[in-house]
Amino acid sequence: MSQNDLIDLITRGADEILKPEELARRLESGRPLRVKAGFDPTAPDLHLGHTVLLNKMRQFQDLGHQVIFLIGDFTGMIGDPTGKNATRKPLTREDVLANAETYADQVFKVLDRERTEVRFNSEWFGQMSAADMVRLAAQHTVARMLERDDFSKRFAAHQSIAIHEFLYPLVQGYDSVALKADVELGGTDQKFNLLMGRGLQEHYGQPPQIVLTMPLLEGLDGVQKMSKSLGNYIGINEPAIDIVTKAMKIGDELMWRWIELLSFEISIAEAQRLRADIDSGALNPRDLKLRLARELAARFHGAVAAEQAIAGWNAAVRGEGDISQLPLTEVAVPAEGLRIAALLTAAGLTPSNSEASRKLRERAVRIDGEVFEDPQRVFTAGFEGVLAVGKRNFARIRLVG
Amino acid sequence: MSQNDLIDLITRGADEILKPEELARRLESGRPLRVKAGFDPTAPDLHLGHTVLLNKMRQFQDLGHQVIFLIGDFTGMIGDPTGKNATRKPLTREDVLANAETYADQVFKVLDRERTEVRFNSEWFGQMSAADMVRLAAQHTVARMLERDDFSKRFAAHQSIAIHEFLYPLVQGYDSVALKADVELGGTDQKFNLLMGRGLQEHYGQPPQIVLTMPLLEGLDGVQKMSKSLGNYIGINEPAIDIVTKAMKIGDELMWRWIELLSFEISIAEAQRLRADIDSGALNPRDLKLRLARELAARFHGAVAAEQAIAGWNAAVRGEGDISQLPLTEVAVPAEGLRIAALLTAAGLTPSNSEASRKLRERAVRIDGEVFEDPQRVFTAGFEGVLAVGKRNFARIRLVG
Repeated sequence: MSQNDLIDLITRGADEILKPEELARRLESGRPLRVKAGFDPTAPDLHLGHTVLLNKMRQFQDLGHQVIFLIGDFTGMIGDPTGKNATRKPLTREDVLANAETYADQVFKVLDRERTEVRFNSEWFGQMSAADMVRLAAQHTVARMLERDDFSKRFAAHQSIAIHEFLYPLVQGYDSVALKADVELGGTDQKFNLLMGRGLQEHYGQPPQIVLTMPLLEGLDGVQKMSKSLGNYIGINEPAIDIVTKAMKIGDELMWRWIELLSFEISIAEAQRLRADIDSGALNPRDLKLRLARELAARFHGAVAAEQAIAGWNAAVRGEGDISQLPLTEVAVPAEGLRIAALLTAAGLTPSNSEASRKLRERAVRIDGEVFEDPQRVFTAGFEGVLAVGKRNFARIRLVG
Repeated sequence: MSQNDLIDLITRGADEILKPEELARRLESGRPLRVKAGFDPTAPDLHLGHTVLLNKMRQFQDLGHQVIFLIGDFTGMIGDPTGKNATRKPLTREDVLANAETYADQVFKVLDRERTEVRFNSEWFGQMSAADMVRLAAQHTVARMLERDDFSKRFAAHQSIAIHEFLYPLVQGYDSVALKADVELGGTDQKFNLLMGRGLQEHYGQPPQIVLTMPLLEGLDGVQKMSKSLGNYIGINEPAIDIVTKAMKIGDELMWRWIELLSFEISIAEAQRLRADIDSGALNPRDLKLRLARELAARFHGAVAAEQAIAGWNAAVRGEGDISQLPLTEVAVPAEGLRIAALLTAAGLTPSNSEASRKLRERAVRIDGEVFEDPQRVFTAGFEGVLAVGKRNFARIRLVG
């Protein structure tokens, strides 16, 4: 791989790099770089949004660099020292280790376990004295700390900022010193904290780390960032068929974004060729979306499960192949049964019976891949099949009494 | 002593008390109160200004309370952690102990050694971890810390405040928790830090301490606060005759202030009677000043040395008694000698020869207590005597070649 290809891969999808020329210099040196990314010590339940960062870590690993998965347990074991947030109980050492196991189960679906150094910052902060913390606090000024976006907003709005909150960015920065990091990766919202490491490394006589921020992944809606609370996410532990089903529902523009940030198989150069093919009509975007969905399902469940899930999706949407991979939802119906419009609404495929009737008239409703048009037919307990409304909205259901 | 007299003594000279009703309540309880005052761990060279606080501590001791002389060595042993101030080198444990000895030599001229608990805050902060410091930092907000006068001024002027500076008031406050202080004494400029102890004690489940601030003593000039750098001070280790000589030079108004803040012998009630006597002409203010000077000299050098110093002063100013107690200054003169005007200027008693000549014409110049009027007489090496210009300005000199 040429130096340029290498830089292209490292910078793929990145939001910002500071300083790119220093990154190029260190990559040229041929020495394996120490690439740090920090994670919360709380129990993780990762979704695709979290994997943007993991993917970047994996790319560094594939290029032979040393990736450090840092768990910030020092502050986690303190909890909320103001005592105001009862939900942020201090974690015990056992909690931290259990959560680290949960992380391992998830992140090693992306990262190469053999080339990942898992560290806990309690390793060095647990040894530190109160005097050490005073010395660390002396390395930054109040005014510059108040420049951090959330601090400046809260300060301006007269919302209280407890003084220990000013110590946490310094803690994260000092982690880079302790780890002698060459590169620190983080979300774009972490930029201020990542820069902290540079200043502290200089103070402690180390060359300042390169900071590489990754954007926040847009969720299924293509607008909001992916998050559990918004419900627009794909969890990495979701069944393969759910990953495929959800991924197949995203819009075409979001597909390009996901390819950039989530695909290993499709290079940026290939993505450009594919976009030209779609523009010219030579390629159906659905087929490219299927390829992406297959790659994601395979990453978290293996190739066999991914193929089964794709087959299930095909069965539901195209009426071909094996539907047994589709998740089965039980829908309760009254003894006298339901007509199709009420059934679609009960299955969550349409918001109302009138909308369901409209879809029916538009010939957009299918059962087991076949267009269905009879508004009067009654479905009763025992019926099982794949209902679809349009191409992106379907469910495998079984009616129960 | 009645409860009222007791409160009068405790509040004598005080700048502010928070909360006086709580102080009255605890004094009434009859329990010996724990009275804390904090001191720098750097090598001390105390002057009368410092003794204002020591005197207040002594008054508490005389009333049977437990005084804690706290040496803030935890931060002293850190030094200046920004590394910007090379003169603030971190103190070693040996430095701290040596400085504590120097303190002891001085402060026990005022305090009762048997009733003084000398403590070092490294005792508890040396045991504290970085996590403990984070928890302590959580007990105050950035906005409230910025309300401290010097912080708010520096912040407004865009002068940098290092974050560890926000930890130091919390350190001082936590000392009150560790010591279970009932009362904290300090200079009026320390009020913010003293209040810090109240908040922290409440957080740690202790009744908040009473805060009693003492004013800063005006120096010999009666205007600026007493300080070494301004040269308007009386060091407590100065010879008794220097204490008397300097004290006799202060103005009448400053004398009342010094009586309030420095005298144990003259009660506030007596001071009011003495003021009436002076106003009516029944008492010469010089005699009251002599009494104050004698008390101060006796405090730091004992009664015998004080009497000798007073005698020396009388010899110089009134031409009576023993001059051997006056400090002897050698003044270099040319071989041909000096006339009186040049001599007075050379001895530092007049700012210029013309001023000296004017004083001579006013009959304000005395040698060994006798008015001297001859402008032509030449003084040569070997001459020794007490020169005086007016009543407050004199020196015992010896001329050398």
